[in-house]
Amino acid sequence: MALVTLTTDFGEAAPYVAVMKGVLLAIHPDARLLDLTHRIRPQDVAHADYFLGTAVPHFPPGTIHLAVVDPGVGGERKPLLIEAGGQFLIGPDNGIFTRTVHALGGTPTVRTLENPQYRRPEVSATFHGRDVFAPAAAHLSRGVPPAEFGPVQPTWVQRKHTSAVCWQNVCGGDVQFIDDFGNVITNIPADRVKELPVHVSLNGEPPHPLRWVRTYSDAAPGELVSLFSSDGFVEIAEVNGNAAKRVSAAVGMAVKIRFG
Amino acid sequence: MALVTLTTDFGEAAPYVAVMKGVLLAIHPDARLLDLTHRIRPQDVAHADYFLGTAVPHFPPGTIHLAVVDPGVGGERKPLLIEAGGQFLIGPDNGIFTRTVHALGGTPTVRTLENPQYRRPEVSATFHGRDVFAPAAAHLSRGVPPAEFGPVQPTWVQRKHTSAVCWQNVCGGDVQFIDDFGNVITNIPADRVKELPVHVSLNGEPPHPLRWVRTYSDAAPGELVSLFSSDGFVEIAEVNGNAAKRVSAAVGMAVKIRFG
Amino acid sequence: MALVTLTTDFGEAAPYVAVMKGVLLAIHPDARLLDLTHRIRPQDVAHADYFLGTAVPHFPPGTIHLAVVDPGVGGERKPLLIEAGGQFLIGPDNGIFTRTVHALGGTPTVRTLENPQYRRPEVSATFHGRDVFAPAAAHLSRGVPPAEFGPVQPTWVQRKHTSAVCWQNVCGGDVQFIDDFGNVITNIPADRVKELPVHVSLNGEPPHPLRWVRTYSDAAPGELVSLFSSDGFVEIAEVNGNAAKRVSAAVGMAVKIRFG
Repeated sequence: MALVTLTTDFGEAAPYVAVMKGVLLAIHPDARLLDLTHRIRPQDVAHADYFLGTAVPHFPPGTIHLAVVDPGVGGERKPLLIEAGGQFLIGPDNGIFTRTVHALGGTPTVRTLENPQYRRPEVSATFHGRDVFAPAAAHLSRGVPPAEFGPVQPTWVQRKHTSAVCWQNVCGGDVQFIDDFGNVITNIPADRVKELPVHVSLNGEPPHPLRWVRTYSDAAPGELVSLFSSDGFVEIAEVNGNAAKRVSAAVGMAVKIRFG
Repeated sequence: MALVTLTTDFGEAAPYVAVMKGVLLAIHPDARLLDLTHRIRPQDVAHADYFLGTAVPHFPPGTIHLAVVDPGVGGERKPLLIEAGGQFLIGPDNGIFTRTVHALGGTPTVRTLENPQYRRPEVSATFHGRDVFAPAAAHLSRGVPPAEFGPVQPTWVQRKHTSAVCWQNVCGGDVQFIDDFGNVITNIPADRVKELPVHVSLNGEPPHPLRWVRTYSDAAPGELVSLFSSDGFVEIAEVNGNAAKRVSAAVGMAVKIRFG
Repeated sequence: MALVTLTTDFGEAAPYVAVMKGVLLAIHPDARLLDLTHRIRPQDVAHADYFLGTAVPHFPPGTIHLAVVDPGVGGERKPLLIEAGGQFLIGPDNGIFTRTVHALGGTPTVRTLENPQYRRPEVSATFHGRDVFAPAAAHLSRGVPPAEFGPVQPTWVQRKHTSAVCWQNVCGGDVQFIDDFGNVITNIPADRVKELPVHVSLNGEPPHPLRWVRTYSDAAPGELVSLFSSDGFVEIAEVNGNAAKRVSAAVGMAVKIRFG
């Protein structure tokens, strides 16, 4: 019984997610639905890309991930079905799956969802989650072969990811995510840390010298520290506080780190 | 294995929803639970009515929808089990199911939940979600026939819905919903749009002339536009922005639209 | 097919909960996952303790509750597997299960999760939800006996709970929870109410005389009243309003109540 996960920026006040769940279950009543999040920031493709790229690789083969963060709905962007690493990704062709496909490895098979048999009879211009993506996920979960949904397309939209650049004991990168605790996660690989202390400069401002700790509980409440993020990047945190507010960090902001 | 959906205004900080899930599963361990939302605005019967009326009709026959938005809990209002269109609705008799029953069509069978065998032994005055509604949903999902729960009641509370009124090229209606993106959804049928541009006046203020677009991606970021909502009504949106804030819209506010 | 519930303070913007779900399902694809909440206030052990202590006792025997509110992650605190009342609790040894174990009754069996076979190969210092707790819940749900996870530990961390103290017609206690409606729930047993009216004094300020009502619908909108909470404590509520804002209440604040 295939698992279908849901990731959207719809929030829970509007009925859009509930509508998608109803459409899915009307087509395949035994589908197992699992919410990942409906709190992607509205229309924030970068947020969706980071979220999915971090979470999806942990799921077992055969999982179907339905993701709708779709500012270009109704326009020229294609609806996609991607097979990668034995999992399936369904959503708009706007870059939300870039990190996920890269993390899953191998060569993905990317198809356009164009077979009208697996859509709702009338496709609106504003809600493809209901009319295109949820029906595709439902039919795939009940065993329709991927090739039935549409032809392979040779290229697909991928977001450009800037990697951190390091030279000697200095790395330049950016803030890739800020979590609900205010922890600031950079794209600077933490295994570069060889000398201490760590001097962190955000947005071109003068550097803060930060103590490097192994874990939050090694620091005093209120202390601003740096540490390995759970994914292996340099993270800036305030114990029992909000580091992002304290240093006025924002996603995409430039970060420069000097070690030693 | 019957599906039970949950819709409440309890939020997720308090344990109320988790308590209801425990009560359901203790009575019927194999019940399949599915969250629709717990973010109905507190005690907002109109919001619940709009949400359920939009989502429930998409679900397959046999689905049980448990909805607790219940400002009158402990008072005179009855607890209901409604059969409509092959689906089941369980919740307070305060109008939250008005649009749903209308959308499902046919004649509903409305029962009062009064059989003490399918309630918790002690019913509190403040939490019928736990003591009355969740037990009823659990017993129904394990196969207890609807007639066991209580007698048919001849009338039930229905909310008055004002329909839009159109005359020649002018329609008057109101704002029926504002979603998390700030999109303003009116109750004015979009198929009235015959001439352009569209002049929208909110709350009696001077009209804005708005460009009519097929989809969000046809407009420039920051442009205020009108378009078909996903349910076929006139919607006012700001691309990559918040239209409701920009035009100071609120649910229930009067809307007048002149076409051409 | 064992049920695994999830309770965290991670929110839904970050991918942490989704990662835990992927890890669980990769180990045990048939596990049934059920969200209780991801809205415990960040690192608020008291909130988690109250939430779990109220909800968990309603679940059926055999349920596995995975709870990650873990300010001490990576430090000295142990990871636990507790058996109590036929249910299983998995999470950090920091007091979040105090009320739950007390409510479930009997003598709990408390084990340290230390068998490396049931962890991820590399355990990070910051994300034991992914590396220790989710794998343990998954393996337990697929039938690994509890004794395999690690040795019984003789003591575990329990939060001190202050009980209300009553003398004649006066009780002193504190605010134990404020829900999303602004209802203020004290730890003063409501069955002490023998004489009316009820005079409530918060934080040492002069007392408010409050009308005692059976249920919200017995009061007028805007009226500040007291009533039985759904768990049998004195609750302060404003009908269709927010009592906590009105009386400036906060969790832990002293409450004194005089009856009559």
